[in-house]
Amino acid sequence: MPGPVVALAGGVGAARFLRGVAAAVPPGEVVAIVNTGDDHPFYGVHVSPDLDIVLYTLAGRIHPERGYGLAGDSFAVVDALGALGHETWFRLGDRDFATCLHRTLRLRAGERLAAVTDGIRRAFGVETHVLPMSEDPCPTFVTLDGGRRVHFEEYLARDGAPDDVRGVDLSAARAARPAPGVLEAIAKARALLVCPSNPVVSIGPILAVPGIREALAAARAPVVAISPIIAGAPVKGPADRLLRGIGVEVSARGVAGLYRDIARGFVLDERDAALAPDIEALGVRTAVLDTLMRDTATSIRLAEAALGLAASLE
Amino acid sequence: MPGPVVALAGGVGAARFLRGVAAAVPPGEVVAIVNTGDDHPFYGVHVSPDLDIVLYTLAGRIHPERGYGLAGDSFAVVDALGALGHETWFRLGDRDFATCLHRTLRLRAGERLAAVTDGIRRAFGVETHVLPMSEDPCPTFVTLDGGRRVHFEEYLARDGAPDDVRGVDLSAARAARPAPGVLEAIAKARALLVCPSNPVVSIGPILAVPGIREALAAARAPVVAISPIIAGAPVKGPADRLLRGIGVEVSARGVAGLYRDIARGFVLDERDAALAPDIEALGVRTAVLDTLMRDTATSIRLAEAALGLAASLE
Repeated sequence: MPGPVVALAGGVGAARFLRGVAAAVPPGEVVAIVNTGDDHPFYGVHVSPDLDIVLYTLAGRIHPERGYGLAGDSFAVVDALGALGHETWFRLGDRDFATCLHRTLRLRAGERLAAVTDGIRRAFGVETHVLPMSEDPCPTFVTLDGGRRVHFEEYLARDGAPDDVRGVDLSAARAARPAPGVLEAIAKARALLVCPSNPVVSIGPILAVPGIREALAAARAPVVAISPIIAGAPVKGPADRLLRGIGVEVSARGVAGLYRDIARGFVLDERDAALAPDIEALGVRTAVLDTLMRDTATSIRLAEAALGLAASLE
Repeated sequence: MPGPVVALAGGVGAARFLRGVAAAVPPGEVVAIVNTGDDHPFYGVHVSPDLDIVLYTLAGRIHPERGYGLAGDSFAVVDALGALGHETWFRLGDRDFATCLHRTLRLRAGERLAAVTDGIRRAFGVETHVLPMSEDPCPTFVTLDGGRRVHFEEYLARDGAPDDVRGVDLSAARAARPAPGVLEAIAKARALLVCPSNPVVSIGPILAVPGIREALAAARAPVVAISPIIAGAPVKGPADRLLRGIGVEVSARGVAGLYRDIARGFVLDERDAALAPDIEALGVRTAVLDTLMRDTATSIRLAEAALGLAASLE
């Protein structure tokens, strides 16, 4: 079956997985549809955390330890802003800042987010196609104890992802339109993957955009999701706190339940093999392997397993 | 006589002179009224070249060789913007960028330029008061052979200050209002100085703002100007090309002629001592000394000479 491999993607986990997908198949045949619910203006520039994590990772320029930002970046701008009295809890590197400033200037000039993202992709020499889920503002808010409502980046980067999550507000995404190319890519995909990303605040916003869930259901290719939870804990990030916050079990089984209406296949870690029967009981085919992406080789192995499961479902 | 020492100021020459003034008298008793005709948006931020040169110099943080920008600054942002396809002939350093971004964000939030400038002054620990000549946009344009009209920063930084100047367009300054505090400072000054700045594109715009020339004429203190031309050449910058472009002799005499209706005193270099009688013949008292500011000590000596001439004119 021709057509691209299309993957719904958040940040670090997705980026590492996409690195594997783009090695397992020709990278120009891969389309990442990326969460923009984390997008936020900082220091007057349009920051798109997940788009940039994906692009920087695929360009081989991601900061290896942090998983976001550019390797070797400096922080002169943010430190100088701090000396001028600005809050600087969002530590945007200088070169990273330039990416976001470029995005802001192009948007201000009337270019749309998908086109701007594609320009950045080309400038970074990335062959994988990277689409924002939407060009409309889709801020994700987290509601905390006492009703306090904060943007996701405030929750994560400023407040350190506290545990008192009461709910996640995706109403902006629910009122947004898919970016140009998103529904078309899903329709013509030869495989549809849900990256091992935070199901609540990374994949959740993508699925909340009207039309995307329907497009997945109508697509000719089956959807295969990869669990971001290994042995009851996220590899990175606050997925545990957010899953608990919306009343979902922090496990591969909990995530599979969230995806049961869209996914026909589910890849989970061998440490969670005991959960596979429960997931199969949901009507979802499973594949079990070591899913921890330590390097490109393990990313490729995981991508191949997911693509293999997708092929078996056709 | 109480009251501040008030100086009309452009960029590098003014900043070096003000360093001397602020050492010769208590710095909190000095007010610099600074040209904003060079202000221009670059990379989406409001760049105020002369305001920042003055502030950085008085803060002791100016790049010593360039005379603009911050010592030890890096250029990660501008280089990264270049990689994304932007023109980068205006080499704004990262920390310098932060100053301009701060200015932009404050202006966007509704703060006015004088207040923003004062905030930057305090953040940099500068005691000398620094006022923009105007809070209105006052772009200076240079007209070149063939009628080509470019912003002054395009003329200077992009085009390398070519020699084919046909005229200088100060029409924006002529339609601007003085910034709050400017006319008041002039009125109550105990001494009024015109810094050794480019008379055409640094002092010219200040004098073009309606009300400033009149305030100088009505002030109780005499005006003393310092020649930016030594031995027929500017110490720095394209004053020679701009003076020729408006048909004025490139000499201390030419500059004194430009200021004859406002200045009662004129400080010129000992290399130009032979011109002093011609300048005195304009009805302007002169002081002659080595005016080249090699370091703070020579800046102080020049400031003291100018203040001494001003005192002798009272």
